[in-house]
Amino acid sequence: MNAVELIMKKRDGKKLSKQEMKDFIHSYLENKIPEYQMAAFLMAIFQRGMETDEVQTLTEIYIESGRKISFPKSWNTVDKHSTGGVGDKISIMLAPIAAACGVKVPMISGRGLGHTGGTLDKLESIPGFRTDLTEKKFKEIIEKVGFSIISQSQDIVPADKRIYALRDVTATVESLPLITASIMSKKIAEGAQNLVIDLKVGSGAFIKNLENAEKLAELLIQTGKKFDQQVAVVFSNMNSPLGNYVGNALEIKECIEYLRGKKIPDIDELTQTLAKYMILLSQKGKTKNEAAEMIRKVIRSGEALEKMREFIRLQKGDPRVCDDPDILPQAKFELPIIAENSGWIESIDAQNIGYALVEINAGRKTIKSRLDHSAGAYLRKKIGDKVEKSEEIGTVFCNDKIAGEHTLKRILASYNISEKKIKKEKMILKSIM
Amino acid sequence: MNAVELIMKKRDGKKLSKQEMKDFIHSYLENKIPEYQMAAFLMAIFQRGMETDEVQTLTEIYIESGRKISFPKSWNTVDKHSTGGVGDKISIMLAPIAAACGVKVPMISGRGLGHTGGTLDKLESIPGFRTDLTEKKFKEIIEKVGFSIISQSQDIVPADKRIYALRDVTATVESLPLITASIMSKKIAEGAQNLVIDLKVGSGAFIKNLENAEKLAELLIQTGKKFDQQVAVVFSNMNSPLGNYVGNALEIKECIEYLRGKKIPDIDELTQTLAKYMILLSQKGKTKNEAAEMIRKVIRSGEALEKMREFIRLQKGDPRVCDDPDILPQAKFELPIIAENSGWIESIDAQNIGYALVEINAGRKTIKSRLDHSAGAYLRKKIGDKVEKSEEIGTVFCNDKIAGEHTLKRILASYNISEKKIKKEKMILKSIM
Repeated sequence: MNAVELIMKKRDGKKLSKQEMKDFIHSYLENKIPEYQMAAFLMAIFQRGMETDEVQTLTEIYIESGRKISFPKSWNTVDKHSTGGVGDKISIMLAPIAAACGVKVPMISGRGLGHTGGTLDKLESIPGFRTDLTEKKFKEIIEKVGFSIISQSQDIVPADKRIYALRDVTATVESLPLITASIMSKKIAEGAQNLVIDLKVGSGAFIKNLENAEKLAELLIQTGKKFDQQVAVVFSNMNSPLGNYVGNALEIKECIEYLRGKKIPDIDELTQTLAKYMILLSQKGKTKNEAAEMIRKVIRSGEALEKMREFIRLQKGDPRVCDDPDILPQAKFELPIIAENSGWIESIDAQNIGYALVEINAGRKTIKSRLDHSAGAYLRKKIGDKVEKSEEIGTVFCNDKIAGEHTLKRILASYNISEKKIKKEKMILKSIM
Repeated sequence: MNAVELIMKKRDGKKLSKQEMKDFIHSYLENKIPEYQMAAFLMAIFQRGMETDEVQTLTEIYIESGRKISFPKSWNTVDKHSTGGVGDKISIMLAPIAAACGVKVPMISGRGLGHTGGTLDKLESIPGFRTDLTEKKFKEIIEKVGFSIISQSQDIVPADKRIYALRDVTATVESLPLITASIMSKKIAEGAQNLVIDLKVGSGAFIKNLENAEKLAELLIQTGKKFDQQVAVVFSNMNSPLGNYVGNALEIKECIEYLRGKKIPDIDELTQTLAKYMILLSQKGKTKNEAAEMIRKVIRSGEALEKMREFIRLQKGDPRVCDDPDILPQAKFELPIIAENSGWIESIDAQNIGYALVEINAGRKTIKSRLDHSAGAYLRKKIGDKVEKSEEIGTVFCNDKIAGEHTLKRILASYNISEKKIKKEKMILKSIM
């Protein structure tokens, strides 16, 4: 194999054969191809794209690079993957709801970096909670409770880990074929027999428009098919942060309140839509209406909350958090966010809010940064909401008042207020299965 | 400066400011940006191109990275650059002809790699010949003879040396902006006040069509202008190897025969066209007709050959080679190349011929390969020439008979013979100044 010739082929928009793709990636993983050749190859893929079967081959190479987890076929497991957003705590409500409806959910989740938070970080704000379980323990909890959420071990899809780290520093993250292989390899290797994808679209997401989102969805579905995994895609609006809280402990509190029956419109719509598809894919319900009814029932009856309690207990967390969220870490200071103008909210720079919260350690600057689980913000206004001058539109929770004031200013500047009335936005843009 | 943000900008086809371009390249040269980020950046440039002023800035950074040679303004120096071809020995005839017409020619030349030969390698087949002269000696010889041809010292344009090595292994060589900065920085730093470019176009060149050639010419001319260097571009056909010989000593012999008055049609047309522009740019002649007459005169009178003799003597070579080319190294074996079919030559894969000759060490596989100066081939047929079955169409000269037989087969396979009559091709496609 001649590495330069293969880079050249991709550079000129030609298709690589299955063998060529394997040779290139394997040689890289065996350190026979240096980082700079892989970097040029990734940028060529970014610019020229890949055919569906090239993406399938890349996904296969990723999967085969490490260990695979599998579950009994009869479990008909379903996982959910989100392409990432600010305030995205949906998994933490979705998993217990789906489990209460009889679905088996093996979730391997990630940590937050930059402007987006991570499900693991949020869960770890619960005193004692552990995410580093063995595969055996993971399976036991799923069998008992119906779901478990753990961290990815080093030996699942190591190829993606290594290539992702290189993509991150070579501006090749936002490539649809590379995103597809990265998502799908992990979700297939972790043993999800079905998958619901929450594909975020909008200014706050890395997919800015529906056209690109549809291309990505098609690649995801076709790649799943190749590995006998059924995939549903929900296209959701990512122009406002999700829910009313951003920050680790604050979001756990919000999740528990939701499971206890509190109405939070955007969370409600997204969680129920995703849960519906999980139920349909795992064949625990036959129609959308039936699934919707099941979901309402398990929330109303407290069965979903009970699943949450059991899950926390088995992962060594303090289950009393389900009755008294105030045992979660609390910040010393609460700074009110006061509107400076009247009008309607036209846009929210969610990414900027995410980065602003990194300053009070609610998120991570680098992989090694220490989180302050209690820090975060309450943000009660969405696009289209009316705001009055001097109205309190939210709160910053922090332990460092000076950093908190700075975060507050950046959050305020993230709202674009219009004098004209602005229409509220739809949460769900489209769904396909 | 954030390296990823700058790669991203170029990746998305945006223009980098002068400061951004400088920051990126300087950080790389200071080892603050790793090779893989430069590799991704180069591939982004390959795919998205660069605006003219970005190319000018890159050229400036290249030039400023090392030492510059300069000549008295009154010398009005001219150099020639060829974008590379098989059998391209033109410099070796062109420089003494131009010098005999009064032109001052400071040539800093390269070595061959892969399928193309290098002027320095050819000259070094002359017993005793030296190309590693000091700047002082270089200037002295130009003052005395009118021209000198030496190797590039390490301290001229080191930035291009380093980036070129990376381009070579990341499939980013054939990028018009990168080619422009690479050529122009060297030709400006070596002190050429004017420049004639022999831009090869065709299947055997890396520029395959006239449209791309015109884009490159425009970039070259505009970049020259920025640094007060006047540039003329001659677009020449690179579908057949140049002249009748390929191989180091064989080509020196052919050059001397040409300077002694032998007619070799393609060499004659290209050399005279390039020489004409050198004379016009340096203002030693006023019109094309006047320049053409000057050239014919210095060949006929033996003045050009005399310049050659003087040049060889001053660079420590054996000047008797000008009277008796047989003192050049001779190969042990001469294998006749016999045509297997009758017809007209439709195409010649010059690149394949170049690689075939690497097998008998007439060219280099890697930078470190040792050359056999005596090895090479005599190839007397051009596109459009008639060939009879069993006719001897050339000769392979080699010291290793087995490798030679293999080279011979590859050369034969490089000719595509048609049963229908094929038109001869033009040597010069176009010229601009």
